[in-house]
Amino acid sequence: MDEHWMKLALTLAESARGQTAPNPMVGAVAVKGGRLVGSGAHLKAGTPHAEVHALDMAGEEAAGCTLYVTLEPCNHYGRTPPCTEKAIAAGVQRVVIGSLDPDERVAGNGIRRLRAAGIEVEEGVLREECLRLNEAYFHHRKTGLPFVTLKTAMTLDGKIASVTGDSRWVTGEEARHQVHRLRHEHDAVMVGSGTALADHPRLTTRLPGGGKSPLRVILDSRLRLPLDSPVVDTAEAPTWVFCTQEADEKKEQQLEEKGVRVFHSVPGPHVDLATLFRILGEHGILSVLAECGGELNAALLRGGWVGKVMIFLAPKLLGGKESPTAFDGMNPERMDEAIRLQDVRVESFGEDWCMTGYPDDRMDGEGS
Amino acid sequence: MDEHWMKLALTLAESARGQTAPNPMVGAVAVKGGRLVGSGAHLKAGTPHAEVHALDMAGEEAAGCTLYVTLEPCNHYGRTPPCTEKAIAAGVQRVVIGSLDPDERVAGNGIRRLRAAGIEVEEGVLREECLRLNEAYFHHRKTGLPFVTLKTAMTLDGKIASVTGDSRWVTGEEARHQVHRLRHEHDAVMVGSGTALADHPRLTTRLPGGGKSPLRVILDSRLRLPLDSPVVDTAEAPTWVFCTQEADEKKEQQLEEKGVRVFHSVPGPHVDLATLFRILGEHGILSVLAECGGELNAALLRGGWVGKVMIFLAPKLLGGKESPTAFDGMNPERMDEAIRLQDVRVESFGEDWCMTGYPDDRMDGEGS
Repeated sequence: MDEHWMKLALTLAESARGQTAPNPMVGAVAVKGGRLVGSGAHLKAGTPHAEVHALDMAGEEAAGCTLYVTLEPCNHYGRTPPCTEKAIAAGVQRVVIGSLDPDERVAGNGIRRLRAAGIEVEEGVLREECLRLNEAYFHHRKTGLPFVTLKTAMTLDGKIASVTGDSRWVTGEEARHQVHRLRHEHDAVMVGSGTALADHPRLTTRLPGGGKSPLRVILDSRLRLPLDSPVVDTAEAPTWVFCTQEADEKKEQQLEEKGVRVFHSVPGPHVDLATLFRILGEHGILSVLAECGGELNAALLRGGWVGKVMIFLAPKLLGGKESPTAFDGMNPERMDEAIRLQDVRVESFGEDWCMTGYPDDRMDGEGS
Repeated sequence: MDEHWMKLALTLAESARGQTAPNPMVGAVAVKGGRLVGSGAHLKAGTPHAEVHALDMAGEEAAGCTLYVTLEPCNHYGRTPPCTEKAIAAGVQRVVIGSLDPDERVAGNGIRRLRAAGIEVEEGVLREECLRLNEAYFHHRKTGLPFVTLKTAMTLDGKIASVTGDSRWVTGEEARHQVHRLRHEHDAVMVGSGTALADHPRLTTRLPGGGKSPLRVILDSRLRLPLDSPVVDTAEAPTWVFCTQEADEKKEQQLEEKGVRVFHSVPGPHVDLATLFRILGEHGILSVLAECGGELNAALLRGGWVGKVMIFLAPKLLGGKESPTAFDGMNPERMDEAIRLQDVRVESFGEDWCMTGYPDDRMDGEGS
């Protein structure tokens, strides 16, 4: 039954995706005598943790209950008191944990504290699912860098646009709606200036019920971005532009007057990706949705920056020798230089599909 | 219950795929009082039809039974006596038919004969499935042309090979095994000389338990095919080469000495596809598996020659601006020039997938 209740805790955690940053998503369930007595999810940084909601809901039933929680309970005073003390005070009998918290202030201390108080603790129930749930959080805690999800949309023959750059639309409404959900769920969205200039995207989240627009990150070596570009309108969402040392100072000033933050990369012809991701990570950006063109996609992938790939596939064939593809860059000579995707899953959105996979078997979490 | 028994008849028919040409696949089931009393499939041209097997198996139980058959029973003397007479003589009470037979010798005559004999006839049960089953047969009967299935294998980013032409292997063993099954099931396999020269394919069927190699059709405008090419070895399977008027006569003679048949297309720089398919159709080739490169694929697709597309997708990313893609050809200017696939289905083969779809809503059958 442990897996059954942990699944419910996972569902609760997942339901707050996009609204907990910079905190991880966490779900908790309290069970006594086989009956659900409490449930909760962490909703927003600075508000109570999932365990607190679940135990509050349980009230007096918390005494002697089993508490299921997707992530190790915290044992330190942050903006809220430690969850371990709450569980101990409530008289919880057993705690079942999905994954350890790699945060150095937790990192096993939560479990130790619970056990010291005589509570039975089990950990690792649905561990893989719990690690995937917070893959961005774990990656950031481990590396200091954001977790990059590379998203693209292509025809079934691999074309992302016509030779003239026409890409409206590759996929149908349901798939495009899902992309807006992805923007809502990510801290930042990223494109190159080529995409910004060609497609004039707003890169905001436009969902029927609202949603949170991500930080917009534009790679623009020579600050080619026109001042009337939709992404320069910072009333909708913040925009950070990364350029090289050689970029025009006057243009930089004009962009900053519009509210855009401009960052300079280390010397070189292109924006240095290591600098860019280090800066984003330092600013607490845990997750980046890259919606770039073929050249930047290839640089991200071959540079090892991509944590996850999401490819929306439309059931149609465009053809054209020069129609652009999603991953260009240097030409590998051998087929075995292809990068395999792991743990691939297929979802359908209307008539389209989305294939999601991980470029290598990297699985961040628990300090592995 | 009619659909239940028709499904069984479809499964029986399908089980003989690849071995009935030039006849269609047909399955039949005899049912009496809710019990199966006979079943059969057409196995090979010149041998008994499915209905005959099913009624023979039923024996005396055939009297008063319901006979399910995927295709309208024949009413003419071919290499075997008419199935209608067999059903009438056996005392069949009711006949349930999946699809009508467009063959001009049948085309409703089978049903009329049965009804005239007082047998209750219902038709159109699982019609779509019955038409798909024999899509090649129906297409050939209607147009005189073979049904072309375009098959390709690509990485998830749409590359069929590296820039050097390395394509071994895009997909894994299970997907490649399935391609050999497809060869077994088709009357002919087709490539351009570019593919023949670059990959040296044998284009034969190599399955663990045997299988039938298809006719190999090579488009080779200027007869560039070397005499030591594996496809010139006609001991394994027959080979037909299509060239233009300008091809070298001496080379033609050398190929013919090796057992290769050489056909000349109408004047022009390339082999004329209309001529090619007309000739194949006239020779009783009902189905062609096209395993071509990007240019020929585009010509086939844009020319409207493709009845079905099968794309094997490997979960990996190759990249490379010049890595070839599956559909090249002329560059369309707008995304809405893409050709939609209908009735798409996804199957998995090991770690790979196969996406199958129909380039338009063309559905041959019953003279529609």
